[in-house]
Amino acid sequence: MSDHDYDSTDRSRVRRRPERGSHERAVVEEILDDGLVCHVGFVADGRPIVIPMGYARDGERLLLHGAPASRLVKTLEAGAEACISVTLLDGLVLARSAFNSSMNYRSVVVFGKCRSLAAEDRRKALEILTEHFAPGRGAEARPMSEEEIAGTVVLAVSIDEATAKVRTGDPVDPEEDLSFPVWAGVIPLRLRPGTPIPASNLAAGIEPSRVVTEYRPGPAAS
Amino acid sequence: MSDHDYDSTDRSRVRRRPERGSHERAVVEEILDDGLVCHVGFVADGRPIVIPMGYARDGERLLLHGAPASRLVKTLEAGAEACISVTLLDGLVLARSAFNSSMNYRSVVVFGKCRSLAAEDRRKALEILTEHFAPGRGAEARPMSEEEIAGTVVLAVSIDEATAKVRTGDPVDPEEDLSFPVWAGVIPLRLRPGTPIPASNLAAGIEPSRVVTEYRPGPAAS
Repeated sequence: MSDHDYDSTDRSRVRRRPERGSHERAVVEEILDDGLVCHVGFVADGRPIVIPMGYARDGERLLLHGAPASRLVKTLEAGAEACISVTLLDGLVLARSAFNSSMNYRSVVVFGKCRSLAAEDRRKALEILTEHFAPGRGAEARPMSEEEIAGTVVLAVSIDEATAKVRTGDPVDPEEDLSFPVWAGVIPLRLRPGTPIPASNLAAGIEPSRVVTEYRPGPAAS
Repeated sequence: MSDHDYDSTDRSRVRRRPERGSHERAVVEEILDDGLVCHVGFVADGRPIVIPMGYARDGERLLLHGAPASRLVKTLEAGAEACISVTLLDGLVLARSAFNSSMNYRSVVVFGKCRSLAAEDRRKALEILTEHFAPGRGAEARPMSEEEIAGTVVLAVSIDEATAKVRTGDPVDPEEDLSFPVWAGVIPLRLRPGTPIPASNLAAGIEPSRVVTEYRPGPAAS
């Protein structure tokens, strides 16, 4: 792996539209940092399984948090190869024809084997996951206990083999469609927070901090 | 398959948290109808691949639209088994501890083999895809040509074997955490449209219709 780009193997190379592919480290990392949920694919009994998981980037690896008893985590812990996909939908691209309409998106695919973090590495990893999901929340929430850390599983997978694909900007219509009398352009889409809903058992007088009231999912969404 | 529920095989049964699993047809269909992007997993050379694709539900099947030359479409057309996952992130669930914090979500996993639709079935399928992505757009956009329909691929996969998982509502804290003095609750998350951006080559005087100005992704998001 070079200092600046992720490895491009035959498997991870973008085949269909090489102009949309990017192995630049910054692009891969920015997309990963903007997402909250990844889709983890693996093979069980020769068949594909795809499951959503929360994740966070920790430098050159992804951290995945799962319930220790789950089939997914057991299979991944056992060294199964995984394909991890993160997709951020940025907009609906309306060409003059429905046929040439498209979506603006940013996506990353990471290939690798997961390993389960040892107990002594889990606290830091869980803190990174917490910070990714709700920046600042770790400092105000009830601290993690040793028992909690002992009873959980955090998987890590290297981002060595990763591919980014990005589509941005205008629809692409053939010349002969440009005079067709219909609006064309992009409807931007973004994951937005609504008004926080207090837990029904929240004690009276506890107001949400700025961690909650100023929450925005993903740096790019702020 | 019964009239009302989707099949629960060993593979699709929800193992970890059966109380969150649902095979009810209505739940599966509603989730599928609210999403725009699925993650399609398949096995190539024994290894997992996961790729995002646009999709729409057409009764008891999913329609996937892909570029004919892509490796994904070629592999799926050849009869590979697929696992198709749709995940809608509905909220960040902040418990008193980061450890017990979670996400509200709705997800569906569909297992099946894809088949490629014959040319005579593709127009209707492409219309269904268009209507799912941008309701009403098909009627105002430039109609599809026979050449376009001939040159595309639409894959269909039955929703026979499908599982839904849903988490809603409050965080779940242990009794001893309830007095910890921090706000707890849910920050709702929803994919929202921004202000439409006209194409740079849009002819002067063309305004967006209500198809564009009133667009909301997914019925549940409206």
